[in-house]
Amino acid sequence: MNIPSIAVHGGSGTITSSIEDPKNKKNYLDALQEALEAGFSLLKNDGTALESVMKSVTILEDCELFNAGKGSVFTSKGDHEMDAAVMDGKNLNAGAVAGIKGIKNPVLFAEDIMKNTPFVFLAGNEAMEYARRQEYEILPDSYFFTQLRYDQWTSLRDSGEVKLDHSSDNELKFGTVGAVAVDSEGNLAAATSTGGMTNKAWGRVGDSPLIGAGTYANNKTCAISCTGHGELFIRGVVAYDVSCRMEYGGMSLEQATNEAIFTRLKNLGGQGGLIAVDAQGNISLPFNTEGMYRGMKNNRQTLTKIMH
Amino acid sequence: MNIPSIAVHGGSGTITSSIEDPKNKKNYLDALQEALEAGFSLLKNDGTALESVMKSVTILEDCELFNAGKGSVFTSKGDHEMDAAVMDGKNLNAGAVAGIKGIKNPVLFAEDIMKNTPFVFLAGNEAMEYARRQEYEILPDSYFFTQLRYDQWTSLRDSGEVKLDHSSDNELKFGTVGAVAVDSEGNLAAATSTGGMTNKAWGRVGDSPLIGAGTYANNKTCAISCTGHGELFIRGVVAYDVSCRMEYGGMSLEQATNEAIFTRLKNLGGQGGLIAVDAQGNISLPFNTEGMYRGMKNNRQTLTKIMH
Repeated sequence: MNIPSIAVHGGSGTITSSIEDPKNKKNYLDALQEALEAGFSLLKNDGTALESVMKSVTILEDCELFNAGKGSVFTSKGDHEMDAAVMDGKNLNAGAVAGIKGIKNPVLFAEDIMKNTPFVFLAGNEAMEYARRQEYEILPDSYFFTQLRYDQWTSLRDSGEVKLDHSSDNELKFGTVGAVAVDSEGNLAAATSTGGMTNKAWGRVGDSPLIGAGTYANNKTCAISCTGHGELFIRGVVAYDVSCRMEYGGMSLEQATNEAIFTRLKNLGGQGGLIAVDAQGNISLPFNTEGMYRGMKNNRQTLTKIMH
Repeated sequence: MNIPSIAVHGGSGTITSSIEDPKNKKNYLDALQEALEAGFSLLKNDGTALESVMKSVTILEDCELFNAGKGSVFTSKGDHEMDAAVMDGKNLNAGAVAGIKGIKNPVLFAEDIMKNTPFVFLAGNEAMEYARRQEYEILPDSYFFTQLRYDQWTSLRDSGEVKLDHSSDNELKFGTVGAVAVDSEGNLAAATSTGGMTNKAWGRVGDSPLIGAGTYANNKTCAISCTGHGELFIRGVVAYDVSCRMEYGGMSLEQATNEAIFTRLKNLGGQGGLIAVDAQGNISLPFNTEGMYRGMKNNRQTLTKIMH
């Protein structure tokens, strides 16, 4: 047993250019470290796994380096649509939201849905009616403006095409943030948040807010947050696939996550990774892309890393 | 082997009052029969499982008796928001849509997304931009008007509350339609379509359009379409749970579906049912509600039924 234990991620993909500059690299690692420390500190002080993942993910949402919350990419219309989900492994409660605008911390919106409505999933413009009813502050687009994301968007937009695929190979492909944790009581939780795809249109929803695809937690098995080519994670039902390999197939966390990423996802032609923790505090951080912004922390070890 | 084989459903729940009138009951059974025969006829004439489930579900969408397509319930605003999904078990391709308006056959929209975009899931008002781009006919609200649904809605609306729970016990609780099939080649497919909850607000999305929750198909295991209390099917990832019990737990279709509905869903406090078929043409139609509109057909047997 190695609990409590926490892991975080800030997306996966081709990320060479983002970290060529050592200062840039340090900024990413520092941000991951801050999210880890804050989440772990809660766990050490009798906080729950749920509180811990919420804390870590809101910190990553507030950091403009990652594609979630403040750092969300631009849609084809030049604004920002965000998705998020949270799941509590203790009771399988879950909350999720897709396509919301102007909300500082989409993961808190997802938790609100979980705790204060009979629903699990609200999507699209209509979900904003719930935000207004709950008196969320609706931030102006300027809060979400970052020069990097703006430049990425305009270069895609000005290509004159409706870009359906992911953005260029010179940047992070799959921007997402997430956290998974197990607390001292053995309770698990997972949370994921994303700004989606640069120049995205048509209300496209990826795997992040979909329970079982990009986010899942169950005290009997594991907590999972994914980052990658969302469509393939949906078709592979990747997060719940890991859980089922453990529950029905008797695999360890490491075996199950490796199978899900290196066999199932790969066979589907999908790229990405995930972070996972089980009730014993074991952690697994597999990915089949060039890199994945990630970190983990327990009583024995603290690690933040980007490339292999 | 008992292929080809097909099953359909038209929702589950408390349905006594709907079928007290023998003529009403006959209308429901006739509609299920028509959907079954049309889907099965395709299967007998070298049609694929995918073509077959699409045919059956569009027939059920066009029938005003069921809560999908034409018979969709009213939202809190007095219009109609529809969700649908389709999955092809041969290649795990999938398409899904949530919160669309004015589209005659949402399941065809989901298939269009699957076949003609790199995406799996489009949601909300933004998804309608894709519909306009593809020159879908946008039907007026009057097409979706049915006196029964209107009366259900006004009685809820006029109660003065924001109704979050499901509608009264005197009517079908979980309106959905769906079909699953296996063709002569052993390919599986599943499709589901729904008008959601009466008086629903805030862009609530249930399990129907979520791959792995309400809809799933995989040639290695089974094809599943669910109907029930959507939130619990999402938290249970019920459709993919059945598949995993077969793939990783070595269960038969019947064992896996019974476990999913009578153990897992029940333990979560969820009500509903599902239709399932495997590659050998076995069919299972379990539900834990008073009734489920359902039918199945293969070379040996044709059945349509409502109550236990």
